[in-house]
Amino acid sequence: MIDLHTSPTPNGWKVSMGLEEMEIPYQVHLVNLAKGDQHTADFLKMNPNGRIPVIVDRETGVTVFESGAILWYLAERSGRLLPADLAGRFDVMQWLMFQMSGIGPMQGQAVSFIRYFPTTVQPAIDRYVNETRRLYTVLERRLYDREYLATDYSIADIANYSWLRSHKWARVPVEGLPNLERWMQTKADKPGIQRGVLVPPSPGKADLVKAGGASIVTT
Amino acid sequence: MIDLHTSPTPNGWKVSMGLEEMEIPYQVHLVNLAKGDQHTADFLKMNPNGRIPVIVDRETGVTVFESGAILWYLAERSGRLLPADLAGRFDVMQWLMFQMSGIGPMQGQAVSFIRYFPTTVQPAIDRYVNETRRLYTVLERRLYDREYLATDYSIADIANYSWLRSHKWARVPVEGLPNLERWMQTKADKPGIQRGVLVPPSPGKADLVKAGGASIVTT
Repeated sequence: MIDLHTSPTPNGWKVSMGLEEMEIPYQVHLVNLAKGDQHTADFLKMNPNGRIPVIVDRETGVTVFESGAILWYLAERSGRLLPADLAGRFDVMQWLMFQMSGIGPMQGQAVSFIRYFPTTVQPAIDRYVNETRRLYTVLERRLYDREYLATDYSIADIANYSWLRSHKWARVPVEGLPNLERWMQTKADKPGIQRGVLVPPSPGKADLVKAGGASIVTT
Repeated sequence: MIDLHTSPTPNGWKVSMGLEEMEIPYQVHLVNLAKGDQHTADFLKMNPNGRIPVIVDRETGVTVFESGAILWYLAERSGRLLPADLAGRFDVMQWLMFQMSGIGPMQGQAVSFIRYFPTTVQPAIDRYVNETRRLYTVLERRLYDREYLATDYSIADIANYSWLRSHKWARVPVEGLPNLERWMQTKADKPGIQRGVLVPPSPGKADLVKAGGASIVTT
């Protein structure tokens, strides 16, 4: 059983979608970012950076923060969504790192300047929308002759998809990138992904998530 | 033998310092970013994102891009700077991901706006200098009772140090963070790190690097 400390953000959904797709039992603990739950002493003990998501594996006692490390942990432990051979594993890891160091931070900056910044800083908005779009075109070229980012469906697809599905919120268009749009649709169609994006559940939606296997606890 | 395609940047040094510290034989291929070497068809075949560093392992035939994935690959293959047990491995991975998703992108944005942006965008400069400093304080708290970011010296120290050593270039102070400064000094004292930061060598310095084991080739 995995304890998942999370909030409704792309990095949080990445892990809940991963847990659902890997069919790993987990319990959800809502971290209310608006209330500052992430700055409490108990939370900082799990992640000194004060960021969601964090997992605790009750079986091994291991705590892991940083969504990319968590996905790798879950994939290794479950033997799912990560190939066993050397070349295959590092093909997945490089595309996971591409998301962690590129798509996530750049799209995140676009969102910050568009949605949360007190003033309009157009040069910064332009910079991050353009750079995120450039990163999308890298995925587009990668996907022109393949169904997944690595050889088979993997945690790299889930990590990147979790950000791509929020592209409108960051005002980054996907028009003219047909392979990327096809890949996004096949991810959107997966039942585990559909359940994972409902975690943590908003009021009245807990039943939909429970269909998957999550046991919702808000602490 | 590892072929290392690199340039003198924090992400490039991360890998050359890692190779030197792990005592892995490698050959350096300079990627001239000013000339646009990273946009050539040959380079994009290795990394579709057009970014250094990239390695090719002649023994396994595996190509890896993204500096964090490369460090993990080299550590696994050499059995160095990465513990074997589950808890230890993921302790390293979460601090490696912290660098890849946090220190690297945020400090990188500070440098971009301070050094390379056509106009002065003060709100963006302030944002990235402040956020990078905040991330430094996370490292400071982590290091108050320990010598390394994880239990033992690891690739997580090398990855974070490679950015920390350039803190002045990003105008992010380390004053008032004594544990971080102590940790930086013990990294700076390591002979492999001292050789690694000279890769790729500037004219007249190739001999210093060769003392380590690198065989310099510019292509």
